[in-house]
Amino acid sequence: MDAIAERVLSGDKRAIARAISAVEDGSSDAGELLRDLFPHTGQALTVGITGAPGAGKSTLVDRLAAAYRRGGEQIGIVAVDPSSPFTGGAILGDRIRMQNMATDPGIFIRSMASRGHLGGLARATVDAVAILDAAGYDKVIIETVGVGQDEIDIVRTADVTVVVLVPGMGDGVQAMKAGIMEIGDIFVINKADRDGVLRTERELELLLSISERADGWVPPIVKTVATEDSGLDTLATRISEYSNFLTNSGSGRDRHRANIAQHRIIEMLRERLLRAALDRAVTADELKEMSESVAHRRRDPYSVVDEIIARLGV
Amino acid sequence: MDAIAERVLSGDKRAIARAISAVEDGSSDAGELLRDLFPHTGQALTVGITGAPGAGKSTLVDRLAAAYRRGGEQIGIVAVDPSSPFTGGAILGDRIRMQNMATDPGIFIRSMASRGHLGGLARATVDAVAILDAAGYDKVIIETVGVGQDEIDIVRTADVTVVVLVPGMGDGVQAMKAGIMEIGDIFVINKADRDGVLRTERELELLLSISERADGWVPPIVKTVATEDSGLDTLATRISEYSNFLTNSGSGRDRHRANIAQHRIIEMLRERLLRAALDRAVTADELKEMSESVAHRRRDPYSVVDEIIARLGV
Repeated sequence: MDAIAERVLSGDKRAIARAISAVEDGSSDAGELLRDLFPHTGQALTVGITGAPGAGKSTLVDRLAAAYRRGGEQIGIVAVDPSSPFTGGAILGDRIRMQNMATDPGIFIRSMASRGHLGGLARATVDAVAILDAAGYDKVIIETVGVGQDEIDIVRTADVTVVVLVPGMGDGVQAMKAGIMEIGDIFVINKADRDGVLRTERELELLLSISERADGWVPPIVKTVATEDSGLDTLATRISEYSNFLTNSGSGRDRHRANIAQHRIIEMLRERLLRAALDRAVTADELKEMSESVAHRRRDPYSVVDEIIARLGV
Repeated sequence: MDAIAERVLSGDKRAIARAISAVEDGSSDAGELLRDLFPHTGQALTVGITGAPGAGKSTLVDRLAAAYRRGGEQIGIVAVDPSSPFTGGAILGDRIRMQNMATDPGIFIRSMASRGHLGGLARATVDAVAILDAAGYDKVIIETVGVGQDEIDIVRTADVTVVVLVPGMGDGVQAMKAGIMEIGDIFVINKADRDGVLRTERELELLLSISERADGWVPPIVKTVATEDSGLDTLATRISEYSNFLTNSGSGRDRHRANIAQHRIIEMLRERLLRAALDRAVTADELKEMSESVAHRRRDPYSVVDEIIARLGV
């Protein structure tokens, strides 16, 4: 086994940070490393937390981590942050939070930013969670900003998914549009000291009452005021209740983890195949030339793709 | 040429609807159809409109379309709506809007929902825009809900990108996190009759002042109250100013369209390669079995992916 893998397994934070950078960059060492770590994964409970921008997810995640820390658990946090070359969003957010939490040796926090167009954010995030899992963190919290398909896919890889709403943020139809309602195992109404909390709670209850999960779980609603540390212990209790439900529902957790594994295999396939095509079947200059031909309508994109695929021999 | 392609080119709405369904389903007929239509594309001005949920984008898009209609133009609208099996979000939204606009023969509106895990939403949306472009619509508006990477990718394929904010919706940091600031050619502050409009405008001006675009364009800010039809003509003027800027900036528009073409080629490659792997290298039952092995840590996902890729002969 690689020295880095051994250091990750022993919980060495510098090695963990380096390992996550390697999976983020998609470096060739990362594959070997992940193979070594894989048998040591599957111990942590992974908790995905999502919701619209402005719902106060970062504070909620920080306070939930603090609640777990009071119980003596080691907590990993992976914050998925769409990159902003303009503002450097991920780095900024990371720094602010690092200042608050870096003094606690039982917490590891890392922002993942999506870089460029080749995607891979979902795959890199899942790999980062695997690294923290192998490193012995008891809980790994995955926090995503926004409501895009990419982020829904990411949060779906968690054992438990928490959807965060705030009172009065858009009407019911907006919440439905967000497409996140059906993935929540637990719902949080954060900023529950604000006006409109009852209306939001009722709308949510109505939405939940017209759905019925195949597994029989009824998603609970937890009201929190994260900035005042209120409701976090209840949230932690609901999370462990759902985790127990998964464990006790026989094949429930297995099926869930098999679904995650399948999703992950497909994501990895997608990324590996595209990389193979771009490495072997077409040079960057050729691709640029082809793109210009398409832009000027001298060629159509379908025949270009046919040509690249034929060159790859698929 | 196929009969459907000819009917699309003649502007037949039923044929257009059928063609879009074909690209959404990824049917094999769709490729041939798109090849036929491709030489007839590139005439429409495509306008991407994005922003966080609750910003009032649907109303804004409807009123902008109405403003264009007053000038006699034919308008296509493609609304990208993350699907919600639970609520049927896309269909609901579509129906409400169809009732208002179906009576106008100069408007074609269609919702695109993301379906399942194999992605392809971005590709299908770009194809739908191409169909409307070929069918002779003067402007095609692409509306996306939310701020995920997928949707940023989609809105990036437009000639002009409009980012919609509302007063007081989250603080500045939230707006930055959304990762949409740097893609806006024009910014709209909708619901501009609300408190906090000045603060939002100043924050936005500050953000824009610390960035400088390579092409020299300074993104204007337009204040609207879409529900009262206020500010829409100004928005239409700003959009055509940016379009003229692109045309007059020599290679600007060409470069933009070449970038879009390259992005599109890569998306199509990704989808085609994955489909080839799932069609030819692994059966659904095998994939399920492999996923269960990974979930139980009997196998690691990296060797599974290696095996599938080796079977495909890549």
